[in-house]
Amino acid sequence: MATEKEKFLAGEPYSVLDPELTADETRARRLCKMLNELDDTASDEKDHIIRQLFGSAGKQPWVQPNFRCDFGYNIHVGDNFICNYDNVILDICPVTIGNHVMLAPHVQIYAAYHSLDPRSRAKFVGMGKPVTIGNDVWVGGGSVILPGVTLGNNVVVGANSTVTKSFGDNLIIAGNPARVIRENPYKSEK
Amino acid sequence: MATEKEKFLAGEPYSVLDPELTADETRARRLCKMLNELDDTASDEKDHIIRQLFGSAGKQPWVQPNFRCDFGYNIHVGDNFICNYDNVILDICPVTIGNHVMLAPHVQIYAAYHSLDPRSRAKFVGMGKPVTIGNDVWVGGGSVILPGVTLGNNVVVGANSTVTKSFGDNLIIAGNPARVIRENPYKSEK
Amino acid sequence: MATEKEKFLAGEPYSVLDPELTADETRARRLCKMLNELDDTASDEKDHIIRQLFGSAGKQPWVQPNFRCDFGYNIHVGDNFICNYDNVILDICPVTIGNHVMLAPHVQIYAAYHSLDPRSRAKFVGMGKPVTIGNDVWVGGGSVILPGVTLGNNVVVGANSTVTKSFGDNLIIAGNPARVIRENPYKSEK
Repeated sequence: MATEKEKFLAGEPYSVLDPELTADETRARRLCKMLNELDDTASDEKDHIIRQLFGSAGKQPWVQPNFRCDFGYNIHVGDNFICNYDNVILDICPVTIGNHVMLAPHVQIYAAYHSLDPRSRAKFVGMGKPVTIGNDVWVGGGSVILPGVTLGNNVVVGANSTVTKSFGDNLIIAGNPARVIRENPYKSEK
Repeated sequence: MATEKEKFLAGEPYSVLDPELTADETRARRLCKMLNELDDTASDEKDHIIRQLFGSAGKQPWVQPNFRCDFGYNIHVGDNFICNYDNVILDICPVTIGNHVMLAPHVQIYAAYHSLDPRSRAKFVGMGKPVTIGNDVWVGGGSVILPGVTLGNNVVVGANSTVTKSFGDNLIIAGNPARVIRENPYKSEK
Repeated sequence: MATEKEKFLAGEPYSVLDPELTADETRARRLCKMLNELDDTASDEKDHIIRQLFGSAGKQPWVQPNFRCDFGYNIHVGDNFICNYDNVILDICPVTIGNHVMLAPHVQIYAAYHSLDPRSRAKFVGMGKPVTIGNDVWVGGGSVILPGVTLGNNVVVGANSTVTKSFGDNLIIAGNPARVIRENPYKSEK
């Protein structure tokens, strides 16, 4: 019989109260707290903590306080990841981010959700869907990206957007819910 | 003649600069700061601080950092209150929350507002209206709930919503301003 | 040949990686951190830090944690500036705020942006446009004000608004993007 962590890692509904998983969350929160206390002159120490926290990270990740996540090990970022003030990534499932991605302040990426059924929520059942973000994506401040979303390369997301579905390459999207505003006149080379 | 705190407790306009009320706010902010410093393994200590801070709390409240409020004693939560990262509750008037309520990160509940008249605002007059949230409500991340709003049981609020008016039971609402998206196919038993 | 800081101060595109500018940012972040640690009873100490951090400030600025900015010295506020919880001001260019302005929690003012061209973003080119806010403005929680925006006197901005363009005096605006909801029946005297 699968443990809750095995169900969690398989992307299936799991118990949020499971001790093995809550221990993983406590570890991630402690690493976030250490990271959030450091200023940018401690770049080696910040880099070291980010690599302990994230599942993987490319060259020169830059993360400002207060960064929050659930597990950390489900977050994978490419080169030159820019994560400005007070971002939240709820990484119940993999959150995969390409190269040269910029997240403005107060951006939230949710790979976590709950059932519409109140009986499931009352039983603390957690659920997730992966989020995938391409290269050269710039997400405006205060935006929320919802579970299951894939963004292509060179997508620009307007401030305070709510991204409820997936979008392809070279687009400018904005709004609540986010819609295509126009094509990006500058195309991605990737 | 009523003191500013008496006016405040009666739900009438009051002076934000009143020393008795600012002392109450300082007390609440210190308790929030203590709470926000603790991690989840300190569950007894967190529980103790939450019960000092809130007007009342049911079984097993779970509050993540950085939780912010104004007074704390106007906040009443039922059993299994779930309050994720970086929530704000401006409890100028009572904020009453039922059982099994989940607030995602960056949710804000405002029982506080100001006059449209700039002369009133320049005089630091504070005003409030109660907010009431039923059982089994799940509020999506980044949402703001405005003064005077009542939400029924089993309401699901989409991410980044702005809830400007009251809604009944068993609804899914979303948007800015929030509107009914559809009925929740799963009904509340309460 | 102009240094990056000279370009920055002239409002021209500059390299975000410039050591002189990153040192300025580190200074601002340390001052913010000191400010955010203090509670309201340390009003003289808070006032002193705010005046070191901001370019200029009128009487009695009131700033709650966690306040974030980039440089600080590009921020100019009038008398009785009210800045509630968890505000962000990205002051790449001047952010000029009048008297009796109230920012609710989670408000973000961006005088910073990037190019739509991914090649520019990958080279860490920063750009900015000034933001100007009149007297008696009240900005609702969770709102974002974008680069180049000017707001007149006595503008009330609804919660969770995204202010993408400029607006004149005595208006109530809201939404994503923000639009005029109606005239403010109370006029500004200024």
